[in-house]
Amino acid sequence: MMRQEAPCNGPADREFDVNVKATLSPEDMTREDLARACAEAMWKQDDASKGLGMELVEIKPGLAVMAMIVQPHMVNGQRICHGGFIFTLADSAFAFACNSHNERAVAAQGNITFIRPGKLGARLVATAREISRSGRSGIYDVRVTAGDSVIAEFRGHSRVIAGAWLPDTDIKS
Amino acid sequence: MMRQEAPCNGPADREFDVNVKATLSPEDMTREDLARACAEAMWKQDDASKGLGMELVEIKPGLAVMAMIVQPHMVNGQRICHGGFIFTLADSAFAFACNSHNERAVAAQGNITFIRPGKLGARLVATAREISRSGRSGIYDVRVTAGDSVIAEFRGHSRVIAGAWLPDTDIKS
Amino acid sequence: MMRQEAPCNGPADREFDVNVKATLSPEDMTREDLARACAEAMWKQDDASKGLGMELVEIKPGLAVMAMIVQPHMVNGQRICHGGFIFTLADSAFAFACNSHNERAVAAQGNITFIRPGKLGARLVATAREISRSGRSGIYDVRVTAGDSVIAEFRGHSRVIAGAWLPDTDIKS
Amino acid sequence: MMRQEAPCNGPADREFDVNVKATLSPEDMTREDLARACAEAMWKQDDASKGLGMELVEIKPGLAVMAMIVQPHMVNGQRICHGGFIFTLADSAFAFACNSHNERAVAAQGNITFIRPGKLGARLVATAREISRSGRSGIYDVRVTAGDSVIAEFRGHSRVIAGAWLPDTDIKS
Repeated sequence: MMRQEAPCNGPADREFDVNVKATLSPEDMTREDLARACAEAMWKQDDASKGLGMELVEIKPGLAVMAMIVQPHMVNGQRICHGGFIFTLADSAFAFACNSHNERAVAAQGNITFIRPGKLGARLVATAREISRSGRSGIYDVRVTAGDSVIAEFRGHSRVIAGAWLPDTDIKS
Repeated sequence: MMRQEAPCNGPADREFDVNVKATLSPEDMTREDLARACAEAMWKQDDASKGLGMELVEIKPGLAVMAMIVQPHMVNGQRICHGGFIFTLADSAFAFACNSHNERAVAAQGNITFIRPGKLGARLVATAREISRSGRSGIYDVRVTAGDSVIAEFRGHSRVIAGAWLPDTDIKS
Repeated sequence: MMRQEAPCNGPADREFDVNVKATLSPEDMTREDLARACAEAMWKQDDASKGLGMELVEIKPGLAVMAMIVQPHMVNGQRICHGGFIFTLADSAFAFACNSHNERAVAAQGNITFIRPGKLGARLVATAREISRSGRSGIYDVRVTAGDSVIAEFRGHSRVIAGAWLPDTDIKS
Repeated sequence: MMRQEAPCNGPADREFDVNVKATLSPEDMTREDLARACAEAMWKQDDASKGLGMELVEIKPGLAVMAMIVQPHMVNGQRICHGGFIFTLADSAFAFACNSHNERAVAAQGNITFIRPGKLGARLVATAREISRSGRSGIYDVRVTAGDSVIAEFRGHSRVIAGAWLPDTDIKS
C-alpha cells in the first residue's frame, strides 16, 4: 500500500464494510447477493477510493452509498473541500452502482453541480441511484450530502464493456 | 502540511512554477501581469492541488495549463487513473483560468467526458480556455492530454462572487 | 395567432387544461393554488408551447407534467422525431416547474440524453420534478416517456430573476 | 405536409444552399466532397429542419454552419425565442457535422447553456465544430450567435451506428 499516512488520514484501507455472504455458491445468488459480491471484487482493486478513506455504506442492485471525511489534504486555504474530491466521491459511488449487475461498466461521463461547500472534517455521503439502463448505456444520479445539507448533485453516464465481475454466476431470480 | 510522503509521491509542494513579476506596483500591471499575480495568490492557499503534485505550467488571462503525474495512490488494480483525479486536474486548471481576471470566481458546475484511460506514471496536461464570459457567468473548456492522446474533455461553468484577489489594482490596458 | 393549421396539427391553442381556482383572493392561496395561478399566467403568453400542441397535464409546487403528440413537421425521413422537439417539450415542463413558486425563473442550462426514438404520432409525456433549490439556483429533472418507454432524460438548471408572476400574493401556509 | 404557411413563416422548404458537386463519381471524392454529399442526402429527409426554415450555410468534414430566423411561432409573450428552438438549431448543426464523414451518427446527448435571449426576427447562426472522435463516440461544440452576440453554447455527444450515407464510396485522400 502506497499511502502509509493512515494515522493522520483517518480510515484508510479499512475493511470492507458491507456484509457479503461469501460462502454462497454462485448459483444460489439473488440479485442482492450478486451486487454485494461485485462490490467486494471491485473494492479489492480500488486503491484510489480506499486511499481517500472512503467507505462503502450500502450496496444493492443499481444503488450504492459511499462516505468520505473531508481531510486536510483535500481543502484549500479557506478550509473548503476542492470540488475534485467531491466529484471523486460521487464518481466512486456511481461506479459501484453501475457495476452492481455483474456486467463491467465504465464511466463515460460525469456532470456535477456544486451547491454548498464541503467543510474540513465533514462526513460527505454520496447516494447513487440508477435512473436508466438501456442497451449498454446507463444513467445514474448521485446526491452528495453532509448531514441534512445537499452539497452536490451529480449525473453519470456509464457504458457496459466486455467482461463480468463473477464470470460463472447464474442469478437466482 | 499533512502529506509528508513526497519521496513516494513525486513533486508535492513544489515551488510556484510560473514567473511572476512580483515587484511591479499594481498600477503598472498589464492584464497578463494581473493573471499571474492572481494565480500566485490562489496557488499559495491551494493545498489540494499542491498535495496532488500539480504544477501550473502557464497562466494568461482566460487561460491556464496545469500538469499532474498519475501516481500510485490515484490508480485502481488495472493501473488506470480513477476518473476523479482526472476531473480534479481539469477542475484546478479551470479554477485558475476563471480567476485570472482578478474577480473571485467559483466552480458552479463541471462536466467531464472520459475518452481514454490515464495510465500510471503518465503526465497529464490540462489546458483550460475561456469560451464565454457574460455577467457573472463563465464557460471554460479544458482538454486533458497525455502526450498526443486526448484523455478527457471537460466543460466548466463559473460564477463570480464578491471580492478580488488583488483588491487595490488598477489594470494598465 | 400565427399558426392556423390546427385542423392538421391537433390540439393547437387548446384551452388551459388545469383547473385553476381563479376566484380565490391572493391571500387565501395555498402553495398548490399559487402554482396553478403561476402556470395560468405563464401559459397565456407561451405561444411557442401552444403552437406545438403541448398540453399542461399537471402542475404542483416544483412539479409539472406536459404532453405533446409527435406531428409530421417534427420528424425526419425515418419518421423519427427531431431531438430538438423532444428537448423543447422537456424544456417547457421544466419552465413550468421552476416557475411554480411565484418567482420568475429562467432556464440557464439544459442537458438531455436521448434513450429511444420518439415516433410519429406518439404522445410524449414530460414529467419535471424539482431536485434542488438553493439561493437563486435550481435543478430540475425531466423524464420524457411514450407509454411505458423512456424516451429521454433531461436535467435543467434555472436561475431566479427579478419579478413575480402574481406580485401581490401572500401565500397561506 | 402540414406547413404550407411559407408566406408568414419565411424561408420554409428552401432549396439546399450548399453547392454539391453531384456529378462526381464516388471514387473521385475528396473528404470535402463527401461531406457535402452526406449533407445533401441528410437534408433531403430532414423535414423538421426545413420546416423551421433552417438553411445550411457551410459544410466541411467535422464542421457545419446552420442559420434560422426567429419566427413568431417560436417566441413567448415577451418576444423571446423559446430555448427549445435554439437547441433545435444547434442540434441540427451538430447532426450535420457529426454525419459529415459518411458514417451514420446519432445524437446521444446535448447540453446547452443559454447566454442571451434570441429575439423575434433575429437570424441565429449555429457553428458546429468537431472536438473529439474516438471509436464510435464524438464530441461537437456548437456556438449560436446573432450578429456579434453569443446566444448559446452547446456541446453534443454522438454515437456512430450501422450504415453509411453513400455506401459505395471510396474517399480520395
